[in-house]
Amino acid sequence: MKKAEEQKLLKRILVPPGRKISLSKDYDPSYNPGNLTKENARKLLAEGITELADLQDKLYAQDIYGLLVIIQAMDAAGKDGTIKHVMSGLNPQGCHVTSFKPPSDEELDHDYLWRCSKALPEKGRIGIFNRSYYEEVLIARVHPELIVRQKLPPTTDLKTLWKQRFGQINNFEKYLVENGIMVLKIFLHVSKEEQMKRFLERIDKPEKNWKFAMGDVSEREHWKQYIQAYDEALSATSTEWAPWHVVPADFKPYTRLVVAHMVGKTMRGLNLAYPTIDKAQKLKLQEARKILEAEKA
Amino acid sequence: MKKAEEQKLLKRILVPPGRKISLSKDYDPSYNPGNLTKENARKLLAEGITELADLQDKLYAQDIYGLLVIIQAMDAAGKDGTIKHVMSGLNPQGCHVTSFKPPSDEELDHDYLWRCSKALPEKGRIGIFNRSYYEEVLIARVHPELIVRQKLPPTTDLKTLWKQRFGQINNFEKYLVENGIMVLKIFLHVSKEEQMKRFLERIDKPEKNWKFAMGDVSEREHWKQYIQAYDEALSATSTEWAPWHVVPADFKPYTRLVVAHMVGKTMRGLNLAYPTIDKAQKLKLQEARKILEAEKA
Repeated sequence: MKKAEEQKLLKRILVPPGRKISLSKDYDPSYNPGNLTKENARKLLAEGITELADLQDKLYAQDIYGLLVIIQAMDAAGKDGTIKHVMSGLNPQGCHVTSFKPPSDEELDHDYLWRCSKALPEKGRIGIFNRSYYEEVLIARVHPELIVRQKLPPTTDLKTLWKQRFGQINNFEKYLVENGIMVLKIFLHVSKEEQMKRFLERIDKPEKNWKFAMGDVSEREHWKQYIQAYDEALSATSTEWAPWHVVPADFKPYTRLVVAHMVGKTMRGLNLAYPTIDKAQKLKLQEARKILEAEKA
Repeated sequence: MKKAEEQKLLKRILVPPGRKISLSKDYDPSYNPGNLTKENARKLLAEGITELADLQDKLYAQDIYGLLVIIQAMDAAGKDGTIKHVMSGLNPQGCHVTSFKPPSDEELDHDYLWRCSKALPEKGRIGIFNRSYYEEVLIARVHPELIVRQKLPPTTDLKTLWKQRFGQINNFEKYLVENGIMVLKIFLHVSKEEQMKRFLERIDKPEKNWKFAMGDVSEREHWKQYIQAYDEALSATSTEWAPWHVVPADFKPYTRLVVAHMVGKTMRGLNLAYPTIDKAQKLKLQEARKILEAEKA
């Protein structure tokens, strides 16, 4: 992608740190670059994935940086499909996906970052969070009854709680970046209409029935509250060190291309290279060579 | 692969449960089917991976069985490369690789299966162990000083210890299989000559230097002891429920094809299918459809 093109893309998807955004006003979920055919997108994605695999190989060999990709979205926005189509092709030895489900009793007995910390990528690896600690300022906000289960110390009010959590998350991510774990945050932005289409598909196509959950439909009642929660969360936690990206998700081929591009961009920014060895190590290699040669004789 | 062809392959690579095998006498590390070109192997592997991805999708959707693939080998036999070339193409959301390093102090303070249990695949997933608890009857056998670090209860003698461990491992794997976690065990069988060639390559090619570890060369001194330890371990732990496979590893394209085939074979044996829904669930789907339709009106 050319520099100018990338600037344009970023302008479209970035949540500028410090700015209060509105998903419904500032971002178009159905954005679709007119000239992109499915066939063309497939080809571009394959090329992108080849480059990702190469970058990942260097990330792994260098073993200094890690990459955490956080994917958040409404239901049926394509989290699973994006992971499948963009990340298949990576070496699974260096890529680990964690899907966060409702917290277990053990998890609820800890602070909300605990289970996520345990799933962080090691140096040299890519970690993908399919949902994340952001649920704690999103679903927990739409369904405050979930907060009761968390047995928090008595706080003055919920408003303070959310504000505190935004600050905690920003600090946590700053800590990660300062320690070499880059954080790429992606919100897959699907429209309410497209979500309905996808739900109906899950109902109508027998092979997709198993993906359908009754609860997903009832959550649509809270659509507005979710968008409001996202507006606030994205605005409050898009930082210089870990900005949010709002990726249009109504047209899947484009979604995947953008995600692949952003993962690649983040790794390219690290100036990855295969480790070189110093003089002392070179001498050791020659020593090893001699031992091996002696064996042959 | 045709049935007769598969029988032949299995005959060549299987460690028959209950039989005492000798790696050097019974298995040829340099086996290479005469007609296999690199180009041809590449094509066959791509086809195999496409099938694996399809099977994995069903494994994930069905969410009843898990698959544990254990890969053991001497250094430079191609563990990492096999994982990279066979498993890239799978959906990383359903595939997790764990590379076991020398145990940490925390791990040494537990029984030797503890850290492996924690890394077992969930239902619906493929877990790959790059090395495993088998190191505890292999490297620990060649270097018994490692056993001292394990702070075991005083035992009569080491011989009893290894025998106990074989039994423990067999029981552990039986437990896994009975609980739906299939166990596929692969020993990548490289010859001492080919290992030397690969070590020299790591010394001579600057881009491979970082892979070289001085310790690997000195371990060659213990080659015979390792093979002896493998002979005993493979013989003692090849069971009806979790047999060992000795895959020729001198010719990489063939190695990868065989591993891909065995992973596919194991999954095909599970009769995987997308979950179907029952009458009550179908009614619920129709109910959901009505709710969605009402929204449109």
